[in-house]
Amino acid sequence: MRVKKLTERNVGISSDDDMIDITTSGTMTERTLNQRSPINLPGSGETEDIPGIGQYEDFHTIDWQRDIARDRMRHRYILKRKQNSFIDLIKSAHDAWSGWLCVLLVGLVTGTVAAIIDIGTSWMSDLKFGICPQAFWLNMEQCCWSSNETSFELDKGNCSQWFYWSEIMTSSNYGPFAYIVSYLFYIAWALLFAALAAGLVRMFAPYACGSGVPEIKTILSGFIIRGYLGKWTLLIKSVGIMMCVSAGLSLGKEGPMVHIASCIGNILSYLFPKYGRNEAKKREILSAAAAAGVSVAFGAPIGGVLFSLEEVSYYFPLKTLWRSFFCALVAAFVLSSINPFGNEHSVMFYVEYHRPWMFFELIPFIGLGIIGGVIATVFIKCNIKWCRFRKTSILGQYPVMEVLLLTAVTAILSYPNPYTRMGTSQLIYLLFSQCDVSSNDGLCDYTNDKANVAGPGVYTAMLLLSMAFVLKLVTTIFTFGIKVPCGLFIPSLAMGGITGRIVGILMQQLAAKHPHLWFFDNSCGLLGQEGCITPGLYAMVGAAAVLGGVTRMTVSLVVIMFELTGGVRYIVPLMAAVMASKWVGDALGKEGMYDAHIQLNGYPFLDSKEDIVHTALAADVMQPRRAENLNVLTQSSMSLEDTEILLKETEHNGFPVVVSRESQYLVGYVLRRDLQLALENAKRTIDGLLPESLILFTDITQQVMPPPIKLKKILDMAPITITDQTPMETVVDMFRKLGLRQTLVTHNGRLLGVITKKDILRYIKQVDNEDPSSVLFH
Amino acid sequence: MRVKKLTERNVGISSDDDMIDITTSGTMTERTLNQRSPINLPGSGETEDIPGIGQYEDFHTIDWQRDIARDRMRHRYILKRKQNSFIDLIKSAHDAWSGWLCVLLVGLVTGTVAAIIDIGTSWMSDLKFGICPQAFWLNMEQCCWSSNETSFELDKGNCSQWFYWSEIMTSSNYGPFAYIVSYLFYIAWALLFAALAAGLVRMFAPYACGSGVPEIKTILSGFIIRGYLGKWTLLIKSVGIMMCVSAGLSLGKEGPMVHIASCIGNILSYLFPKYGRNEAKKREILSAAAAAGVSVAFGAPIGGVLFSLEEVSYYFPLKTLWRSFFCALVAAFVLSSINPFGNEHSVMFYVEYHRPWMFFELIPFIGLGIIGGVIATVFIKCNIKWCRFRKTSILGQYPVMEVLLLTAVTAILSYPNPYTRMGTSQLIYLLFSQCDVSSNDGLCDYTNDKANVAGPGVYTAMLLLSMAFVLKLVTTIFTFGIKVPCGLFIPSLAMGGITGRIVGILMQQLAAKHPHLWFFDNSCGLLGQEGCITPGLYAMVGAAAVLGGVTRMTVSLVVIMFELTGGVRYIVPLMAAVMASKWVGDALGKEGMYDAHIQLNGYPFLDSKEDIVHTALAADVMQPRRAENLNVLTQSSMSLEDTEILLKETEHNGFPVVVSRESQYLVGYVLRRDLQLALENAKRTIDGLLPESLILFTDITQQVMPPPIKLKKILDMAPITITDQTPMETVVDMFRKLGLRQTLVTHNGRLLGVITKKDILRYIKQVDNEDPSSVLFH
Repeated sequence: MRVKKLTERNVGISSDDDMIDITTSGTMTERTLNQRSPINLPGSGETEDIPGIGQYEDFHTIDWQRDIARDRMRHRYILKRKQNSFIDLIKSAHDAWSGWLCVLLVGLVTGTVAAIIDIGTSWMSDLKFGICPQAFWLNMEQCCWSSNETSFELDKGNCSQWFYWSEIMTSSNYGPFAYIVSYLFYIAWALLFAALAAGLVRMFAPYACGSGVPEIKTILSGFIIRGYLGKWTLLIKSVGIMMCVSAGLSLGKEGPMVHIASCIGNILSYLFPKYGRNEAKKREILSAAAAAGVSVAFGAPIGGVLFSLEEVSYYFPLKTLWRSFFCALVAAFVLSSINPFGNEHSVMFYVEYHRPWMFFELIPFIGLGIIGGVIATVFIKCNIKWCRFRKTSILGQYPVMEVLLLTAVTAILSYPNPYTRMGTSQLIYLLFSQCDVSSNDGLCDYTNDKANVAGPGVYTAMLLLSMAFVLKLVTTIFTFGIKVPCGLFIPSLAMGGITGRIVGILMQQLAAKHPHLWFFDNSCGLLGQEGCITPGLYAMVGAAAVLGGVTRMTVSLVVIMFELTGGVRYIVPLMAAVMASKWVGDALGKEGMYDAHIQLNGYPFLDSKEDIVHTALAADVMQPRRAENLNVLTQSSMSLEDTEILLKETEHNGFPVVVSRESQYLVGYVLRRDLQLALENAKRTIDGLLPESLILFTDITQQVMPPPIKLKKILDMAPITITDQTPMETVVDMFRKLGLRQTLVTHNGRLLGVITKKDILRYIKQVDNEDPSSVLFH
Repeated sequence: MRVKKLTERNVGISSDDDMIDITTSGTMTERTLNQRSPINLPGSGETEDIPGIGQYEDFHTIDWQRDIARDRMRHRYILKRKQNSFIDLIKSAHDAWSGWLCVLLVGLVTGTVAAIIDIGTSWMSDLKFGICPQAFWLNMEQCCWSSNETSFELDKGNCSQWFYWSEIMTSSNYGPFAYIVSYLFYIAWALLFAALAAGLVRMFAPYACGSGVPEIKTILSGFIIRGYLGKWTLLIKSVGIMMCVSAGLSLGKEGPMVHIASCIGNILSYLFPKYGRNEAKKREILSAAAAAGVSVAFGAPIGGVLFSLEEVSYYFPLKTLWRSFFCALVAAFVLSSINPFGNEHSVMFYVEYHRPWMFFELIPFIGLGIIGGVIATVFIKCNIKWCRFRKTSILGQYPVMEVLLLTAVTAILSYPNPYTRMGTSQLIYLLFSQCDVSSNDGLCDYTNDKANVAGPGVYTAMLLLSMAFVLKLVTTIFTFGIKVPCGLFIPSLAMGGITGRIVGILMQQLAAKHPHLWFFDNSCGLLGQEGCITPGLYAMVGAAAVLGGVTRMTVSLVVIMFELTGGVRYIVPLMAAVMASKWVGDALGKEGMYDAHIQLNGYPFLDSKEDIVHTALAADVMQPRRAENLNVLTQSSMSLEDTEILLKETEHNGFPVVVSRESQYLVGYVLRRDLQLALENAKRTIDGLLPESLILFTDITQQVMPPPIKLKKILDMAPITITDQTPMETVVDMFRKLGLRQTLVTHNGRLLGVITKKDILRYIKQVDNEDPSSVLFH
C-alpha cells in the first residue's frame, strides 16, 4: 500500500515554501526520506519506522550528500512544527541544543574516563614494585602522602608506609636477593597484566587492539565499521590500556585515548536521534570527541582541536570547530578537576621553562629535527615490515602468545636500566625537566662549584639513556601492532626526548667548557653559573621531532608541545625541528605511521591532503570499460521480470535510469536497496502483478494492464554527473569535497558509465604503482 | 596562425602518462592553458605570452577549478622538464620552494612593517603631549630611558629630558594656563594628523580606508577588486593608520594590519609567477598573510592562523595551514626581535596572571558575556545605520570634513578624562593589569591595611571609566566607516575592558566586605590580604565578550586572548563569556560587523558557514526562466555572423555549446573572452573567411568552403552540470566547496539553463527577504 499511496500524490515542481510541497516535489533524496523517515509526515499520520533506513551495511561507504539532505529535511520539518504546540516548541529547542548537549556529555564522560585510566594506570604501574599495605588501593605517591612524610622522592624508598615486594618477601630492600625478588615480581606482574589485556581483547573486543587512529581516520572519512566504536570496545580498550601500560610494554595511552573518546562520542550520539541516526551528522560528534581525546591525553585543548582538524577529521565544517573546542575544553577541565596527578596540570610531563634560547641554537634544533626524521623513518619502515610479516605468517594466529613473549622480553630487558624500569611518562617528564637543587637523578649530577659542568653521574646517565633508546626503538617496532591497545605517542616522545637530552647535555658541556666561542654570543659567559643551555628544552624539541616524523602532524603537534610548556617563546625551536623532521620524513618515506597502517590494512581512505598528479580523464577510469556492459534501468520499458533478473545478476549498489537503451539519456539514479524494498512492497500490495508488469519511473496516468509498478518516488532525479572529458583531479576533488559515493559519466547527455569511490581508490593505487586489489571494500 | 596551428594537432583521448599527450588530449581547461600559458610548450617553441590570460576583469569572480587546473598543468610541466637539464632541475626546486619562500618573505616584511608602525604610532602619539628636544625622534619612554633616569612613570613627568608643550611654551607644567596650552596642542596635533591621513587617503589610495577585513573576506572568497591590495594602498594605509591612531580617534590598528599584511602578500606574490599569475593560488598566500597580520597585531601566531581559518579564509586547503602558521610565526618573531615595546612581548597589553579563578565566578563571566553581546549589538546596529546614512546623504561627499570634525570632537571630549586622553592600547593594558605596589593609578588606590578594599581613588576611577565607556561607544559608532584606515578591535576591547573592570571591582568589593558569603567558597577568607578576585581578569573577559559580539569570532578570539595571558587556566572563563556573547549577539542581530559591512556594501560574498534552509530546486533559480531565451552556441551549425551577433547582443560571460538548437544536448561551455580572442585571431590568420563561415566545435576533416573556424580547442568539454531537480542546498554547497563560477542545468541530458554565482547570491538575498539587486557584481 505504501508505495502505491505515495505514488498517487500529485507530483509537480512548486516554488512554495511549504513543507508539504517539498514532500511531493522535492528530489528523490528528500522524497524517499519523507516516505520512510521516522518522523510523522504532516497529514499522513504515518508513524512506521522502516528499520535500516539511512543506515548502511558494514564496510560500506556513506553518502554525505544524502545524509546531509536527510538532516536538512528533518530540521525543516521540526522548524515547521514549532508553531504547532508547546511540546513541539520544546522539541525544536531540544533539537537546536542537542549538538551542544551531546558534546558537553562527551566532554564530561571523556574527562572522567581519562581520569580513571590515569589513576588506574598509576596504581597498577606501582603494583609491579610494591604495595601500600594499609590501603592497597593507593599508589606509591598517595601512600607516602597519606603517611604525612614530608620529603618524598621516587625510587628512594624513604617512605615508611610503602613496601616493596622485596621488603615484604625478604624483609630487606637491599642486596642481590632482594633485587632478584623485585625483578621476578616485576616480570610476573607484567606478564599477568599483559595476559589479562590480551585475553580480554581476544575474547570480547577484537577491535580494541592497536592505537585506533588509522581506523578512526577511515571512519571519519565516511566508512562504516560496525562495532569499532561500540561499548565493548570502549570498556575493553579502557581496561586493556591500563594493563598494557602497567605491564611496562613500550606503548602509550594517548592514541587509544582518541579511540576511547570516539567510542564515547559514538555511544552518546545515540541519545540524540539527530546524530545517532545520521552517519554524516554523527561524524561531527566524532570529530569533537577525537579532539577531546587528545585534549585529555596531553592536557592540550587547543592542540586537540587542531589535531582533530589536521589529522583525523575529513569533512570538518567550520561550525563544528567551535563545538569541538568546547568539547575538548570540558574534557580537559573535568580531568584537571579530578586531578589525577596531584598537580594543577592534567598531564604528567608539564614543565615550565624561563630561560631564553639563543638564535644560534636553531642549528642544533634543526639537527634534532633531521635526526628525528631519520629515527621516525627507521621506526615506520621496520614496523610496517614486521606488521606485514605478522599478517602473512603463522605469527598472526597466536596473538596472545606474541603479547606474552614480548612482555617478558621487554620486562627482562627493562628492569636493569632505571630509565626503562620507570614508566615512560615519568621518563619523559624527567627528560623534559630542568635540574634544580632538589633533583637527585644521575642526570642532574653537576659539579657543585660550576652548576653547568657535568659530573660522572651525568655521563653514566647518558650511557644508560643511550641503551634505553635502543631498547625503546627495538621494542616499539615489535610492539606497535600487537593485539592489545597500544599508542605510539609516548614511545616516540621518549625516543626523541632521549636523543634531545643527550644532544642538549653535549651542547651544555660545550658551552660550559668553551663559553667564549663566538656562536655562544657571550650569553654563556654572562650567565656564568646558570649556564645558557637548557637540556630539557632540547629533550622537548627532540621529542617533537620524532613524534612529528612518525605521525607527520605539524601545527597540532607544535601547539600541543606549546601547551605543555606554556610559553610562546619556544614555538620557533619546536617549529623548526618539526618542519625539518617532516621534510626529512617525507623525503625518506612517503607516509606517516597512521597512513602506512591504513595502506597496510587496505582501508578505503581517500586522503584529502595528498595532491596526486593525475593525467587521466573520467573516461579512462569509469566502469564499465565498454558501453554495452553498462547495467541500466529504463524509465518506462522494463518489466518486473527484467528488473529482478538485473538485480539477481549484478551486485551494484545502484543503477542509473535512462530514457531508453538506445538513446541512453540519463534520467536519474536508483539505489539497489530502495529498489528491492519497493519491489517487495509492490508485490505485497498491488493486486494482479505479473512478471511482465512494467516498472515505470515516469508519470503515466492512463491505465495499462497488467498494473505497472510506479517507482518515480524512489528515483534520485538529481544524481551528480560529470562529462567523460573531466580530468580525474576534478573528479577526485568532487569526491573529497562533496563526499560522493558515485558519480555518473555522460557525453553529450548520454550515459557512458559510473565512477564509484572504489574506482577512485583503485585508480589512485594504480597511479601510485600499488596493488589496486588491496583495498578493503564491500 | 595560432589557433589554426593548434587546431591542426591530432586530438584524441590517450591514457598515456605523457605530458605531450595531455596537451593534445586534455580537456579544454588544460588545452587552452597549454596554448596560451607563458610556459614554453615542448616541441612548439612558442614563447609568446598573451596578456591577460588567467586573469580576470575587475569586480569579476574567479573560477577556482580552472585556476587550480592551470596550476596542476604548470606543475606537471615543470616536473616533466626536471630531467632535461640542470637549470630545469633548479627551476623545479625553486618552484617547489617558492611557496615557502614567499610566505617567509611575507612574514619578514609584515613583521618589519608592523614594528615600524608600532614605533611610529608611539612616537606620534607622544608628540601630542610633548617632545624630546635632545632627540626629537624618541618617544616619551625612550627619551626618559636615554636620560638614564631610573624611576619612570607615565604621565608623571618626573623625567627631565622630556618636555611637555606647556613647559616649552609657558615654562611650567602646572596651572590652568599650562593646561589650556596642552589642551590646544593636543587638539592641534590631532587635527593635523587626521587631516594628513584623510588627505592622503583621498588623494592617493581610496581603498586604504576602513578596516579592510570585509573586503579581504570577499577577495579571499574569489572576487577581484583591482588595486585593493596594491602598493599605494599598502603605503597610504601604513602611514595613515599611524596618523589616525596618533590623532586619538577611537580606532585601532589591528584590523588594518590584516589589510596591510594582505597587501604585502599580494605584492610579494608577484615575485613568484606560480602565485602572482594564478588568482586561486594567490589566495593561499593571502590567507597566510592575513594570519601574519593578526599575529603581529596581537603577538598571537596561533590565534592569527585560527583567525585566518575561521574568519577570513574561504577556500583553505589544509596543506596551507602549516604554511600560514610558519608565516605568522616569522612575522611575530621579527616583530619581537625588533622589540618596539621594549619588553619581550610583541603586544603592549601582554599580562600574566597567576591567581586561580573560582567556579562560582563563571556567573559574572557569563553575565559579562551577555552584557558584551548587548553592547556589540547596539554598536553594530547604530554603526550600520550611520554608515547607511553616510552612503545615501550629502555627508558622503565630504569625507575629509567629516574626519576633521570627528577628530576635533573626539579630541575635545577625550582630553579632560585621563582614561580617554591616553592611548587606547595603554588604557587596555591598564585595565587588564593587576594592581601591585608600583601602580599609582587611581584604579589601584586600595587602602593600605587591606589591599583589596577600595579607596576613594578607585571610585573616582570607576566614574571616569564609565564616562570613557560612553565616549568610546559613541565616537566609535561614528568613527568606524570614515574614510581613513580604522580598525574596531581596539575600541571593542576597550569598551569591554572598561565594563569588565567595573564589574570586577564591584565583585572584588563584595568579596572584600563579605568574604564569608557561601559562594565565595571560603577562598576569599583564606586568601585574606591578597583578595580572591582579579579585576584585570574581568576586564579581559569583558573585552573578549564585546569583541566576540562585534566580530562573531569564537575559537580564534579565545586563542588570541589565551596567547595574551599565556595560561591555559583562563580559557574556560574566556570561552564562557565569548560563547554567551555570541549567542546573545546572534539572537539580537543576525550578523557580525564584518558581515554587516559586506551586506551594506553589497559585496558578492557567499558565506561558507551560514546554513540557509532553502526549499527551491535548481529549476526555480536558473536563468533564463523560459527555455527559448537561452543563448547557446551550436557545435557545427552557426556561422561567424551569427556568433558575432550573439556576442554583440548578449553580455554573458560564457555560452553553453549544444549539439543542435532542437535537441539542446549539452556538448560543452565556452568563455566569452576566449571566444572573442579566438575569433579575432581567426580573422587575422585565416584567408577567405566570410561572414557565413561556420564555427565548428567538432572534429571535421573534410574540406568545406568558405573555410570554417575550428574552435574545439577553446571548448570546455567538462563543465560542471546538475539536473533541474537538484535541491538548491546541494547547488549552493557545490558552489561553495568547488568554487564554481557557473553550473549548467540539464534535464535528461538536455540543457535547460545556467546558474551563475550571481544567481545564487540573488537567490540567497531573496530567501533572506532582502533586495536582490543590492549585490555589487559585474
